[in-house]
Amino acid sequence: MRVAILLYDRMTALDAIGAYEVLRFGPDAEIVCVGKRKGEIRAGGGTLGLVVDKELAEVPSADIVLVPGGPGQEDLMTDTEVLDWLRAVDQTTTWTLSVCTGSLILAAAGLLRGRKATSHWLALDQLPGFGVEPVEQRVVFDGKYVTAAGVSASIDMGLALANRMAGDSAAQAIQLGLEYDPQPPHDAGSPAKAPADLVANMREHSRLFLYGN
Amino acid sequence: MRVAILLYDRMTALDAIGAYEVLRFGPDAEIVCVGKRKGEIRAGGGTLGLVVDKELAEVPSADIVLVPGGPGQEDLMTDTEVLDWLRAVDQTTTWTLSVCTGSLILAAAGLLRGRKATSHWLALDQLPGFGVEPVEQRVVFDGKYVTAAGVSASIDMGLALANRMAGDSAAQAIQLGLEYDPQPPHDAGSPAKAPADLVANMREHSRLFLYGN
Repeated sequence: MRVAILLYDRMTALDAIGAYEVLRFGPDAEIVCVGKRKGEIRAGGGTLGLVVDKELAEVPSADIVLVPGGPGQEDLMTDTEVLDWLRAVDQTTTWTLSVCTGSLILAAAGLLRGRKATSHWLALDQLPGFGVEPVEQRVVFDGKYVTAAGVSASIDMGLALANRMAGDSAAQAIQLGLEYDPQPPHDAGSPAKAPADLVANMREHSRLFLYGN
Repeated sequence: MRVAILLYDRMTALDAIGAYEVLRFGPDAEIVCVGKRKGEIRAGGGTLGLVVDKELAEVPSADIVLVPGGPGQEDLMTDTEVLDWLRAVDQTTTWTLSVCTGSLILAAAGLLRGRKATSHWLALDQLPGFGVEPVEQRVVFDGKYVTAAGVSASIDMGLALANRMAGDSAAQAIQLGLEYDPQPPHDAGSPAKAPADLVANMREHSRLFLYGN
């Protein structure tokens, strides 16, 4: 099972790494980190380097493709080289995945037209412009397209997919291996649960929060 | 606030990246990925490259140091260059952190002697050999030493520390930004919650699960 993870400058590392840590334990998983050019990309605020092992043309097919989000997502939405690759590789996949604003890249490639999908909560309103129905859920399955909410939802998406592919016991074993027993200090991880003034502030400055770093 | 994250071959990427995505939004955070040699290390099963930006000698001090775990942890426990660096940089830190079996590296450096700490649930029994009291909690604070349970506990540790350093509102804002509203398909993320036969099987083959890939 070949899993192609798209890496690009100014992506959010956890978008990719959450699902990576799950999917690499999938049946016969062979992970390949793919990007426009071999070598280093800079994630997050530029303080973390990740390595592209294969260029797009070297990975014409995959069983699973995963597109993370992050501030660099905007540039990719008009990058014909990346969008053409996504459309081509998608024809070969069993599952096409995104995390966070990665769904906007899939949408820009036209792959989610007429489908339900999710994204970072601050970016959900951008989906209808691409003919996509936004859904406020942590993980959304629509056919072979699986989209996750913001950043950390990558882990939940990975586990949900592992469950579909390999069953309850396999998903539980991976979850226990990753000791995914979340205990954040607050219950503030969604706009429905966080303090209203915080949600309002982030909505008002959504571009800063989505694309600032 | 300088945050030094130790990267090494066969580390578990999520151990570092979870807290990274939190701490980079901390007050005046300046993250530096440090390791024995500049350039690429291979995480996980070897399928993910992360980049060391500074060598150990270039980072003689830090406000926060973070030591991830993973299969490569065993080699580091007898690596005098790394242990000497940890002991020296620890003298300059406000917080010294570990995730997963990273606590065994801190323990091998003698930094946790006489303290309470946690680790991956399969590795807790290794702590007493270093004079450390194992605690079955997701995040353990003992003075300036903060240790987290396995892999995904990195996120919870980051948020708990953000809460201590910057207060409730700051921690909530980061949590909402990362959309950390966990919804795994099962409640199987700790040995107390997972099916007993799964726990028993992983305990029986603990070396394989901790160090196999």
